[in-house]
Amino acid sequence: MRKTLIREAEISLESYLSAYSKMVDAELKKLFVRHAEEPASILKAMSYSIFAGGKRLRPILVLAAHECCGGKAKDALKTAAALEMIHTYSLIHDDLPAMDDDDLRRGRLTNHKVFGEALAILAGDGLLTYAFEVAAQNSAEMGLDGKRASALIQAIACGAGSSGMVGGQVADLEAEDWQNKNHGFNPKRHLEYIHLHKTASLIMASLEAGGILARASESRLKALSDYGRSLGLAFQIADDVLDAVGDKKKMGKMGSDAANHKLTYVSLYGVEKARQMARTEAEKAKAALGVFSAQQNQWLKRIADYTIERDK
Amino acid sequence: MRKTLIREAEISLESYLSAYSKMVDAELKKLFVRHAEEPASILKAMSYSIFAGGKRLRPILVLAAHECCGGKAKDALKTAAALEMIHTYSLIHDDLPAMDDDDLRRGRLTNHKVFGEALAILAGDGLLTYAFEVAAQNSAEMGLDGKRASALIQAIACGAGSSGMVGGQVADLEAEDWQNKNHGFNPKRHLEYIHLHKTASLIMASLEAGGILARASESRLKALSDYGRSLGLAFQIADDVLDAVGDKKKMGKMGSDAANHKLTYVSLYGVEKARQMARTEAEKAKAALGVFSAQQNQWLKRIADYTIERDK
Repeated sequence: MRKTLIREAEISLESYLSAYSKMVDAELKKLFVRHAEEPASILKAMSYSIFAGGKRLRPILVLAAHECCGGKAKDALKTAAALEMIHTYSLIHDDLPAMDDDDLRRGRLTNHKVFGEALAILAGDGLLTYAFEVAAQNSAEMGLDGKRASALIQAIACGAGSSGMVGGQVADLEAEDWQNKNHGFNPKRHLEYIHLHKTASLIMASLEAGGILARASESRLKALSDYGRSLGLAFQIADDVLDAVGDKKKMGKMGSDAANHKLTYVSLYGVEKARQMARTEAEKAKAALGVFSAQQNQWLKRIADYTIERDK
Repeated sequence: MRKTLIREAEISLESYLSAYSKMVDAELKKLFVRHAEEPASILKAMSYSIFAGGKRLRPILVLAAHECCGGKAKDALKTAAALEMIHTYSLIHDDLPAMDDDDLRRGRLTNHKVFGEALAILAGDGLLTYAFEVAAQNSAEMGLDGKRASALIQAIACGAGSSGMVGGQVADLEAEDWQNKNHGFNPKRHLEYIHLHKTASLIMASLEAGGILARASESRLKALSDYGRSLGLAFQIADDVLDAVGDKKKMGKMGSDAANHKLTYVSLYGVEKARQMARTEAEKAKAALGVFSAQQNQWLKRIADYTIERDK
């Protein structure tokens, strides 16, 4: 046992993230082979954004949570892929001219710039729908009972929907021109709402989904969800900081928040206070994992540290 | 038994559709009460289109299929509501400027005309996501086993996604300017694909969902699915005919297909042949229900007749 612990500790987080990200990519490749009934164009548009080289944070969290609760990573790959599909659909829709109107993402043209707005909207719709199909397949393959099968879909839908990620996106739209809002508008509360919903909700759902697939107890699911809430906040605050002070080459684009007078942790609290808030949330995330053993929770803890230390 | 049959036969289809549509509306009202975490604006935008007065065909088919398989209509109401949410989301996204660019639907301003494009896109996303949440709740409340809980979500996702309704919408976009396509383009085959996917797929999913919730056997699910396929085709061909020759007052808008040089059964086959094709499909739909008793399948059969006889 001691030997295993030492060996695992020797694996760097970087190799862990890279290996798991490759597993997720391989699963996605299998899932994006054309179905006979599907127009070639929609598969192309969906694949373009799915394989645009993201960090695969959400699917990795599904796998890590699943393992933390005693499951095997490969058994949760479809649900991991589902969470990445939902994240990707949200980016496609966010980039649309009616929303953030972005031409580039990760240095490549955005979906609507390549395929047109209509197909981009439908590619997002297709990804969101396919995510539920694939998660449901996973629950049947794992032999989950009806209650857990339902809980899996509900956790994902709650995290993604109008009281989760979609709600956060709405709040983000409504924060535009926030400096000219009347004094009833509370920017600090509003910003916390945005980050909790636009980012943390789907991260919480990723962790819960991994736990549900591993048949975790209620108390363990609660711990994963609390971890996800703090991790999501830490991640997004760290993003705000990186946008303000990060290395432009590594980030792709930065400084855009300030240029757009966006409501961010940096604009409200300054860089130093924001950094400290991200650290506090990362510590809270790790503290939530006390119900697990040190061997079980090690990767989730290291991911929490990475979240605030990363430079891109 | 004989007495019950006679009594039921005396209820007109019109009263049946009206009563069931009211049950669906009441369920939707319960489901669209604001969740604490939800911005008020997104609930308003989703509710605007959900309560815009549709025929409620898909949810009624969920309920009718559920009863046909021995279930009680009220037990399938959440799934019925879910299918209406998916139908509604598809209309909101179809109406967007990047898609059909429609200002009016059923005589009212379309969602994006009232709430703006960004919120309309998100309202659609929110409805699609909520549909899966509510269907999953229904499966847990009904105590479905894991296999059936998964089948329910998969049936709905298959019908709605890129190999179903979204795929049909893509094919519809790609049929624009069909008269100038090269000779490799087969308009008849393409049009059947559009109608089967854009319309019939979600109708099939509605029937399958009602059956799965009632724990129907594979052969009965197959019968419901076959019925749905033909019913969906009949419904859409009848729509093409109504657009060409219907009563303008009852239809709201008509003649728009011809004005837009749209690929329709009327433009390819003429009114008389199209009418005959709709009748043939309605007969095929009814014939598929042979595994059920006359009492069980009566409403689905009457709905098939209504589909081609309606004047709006």
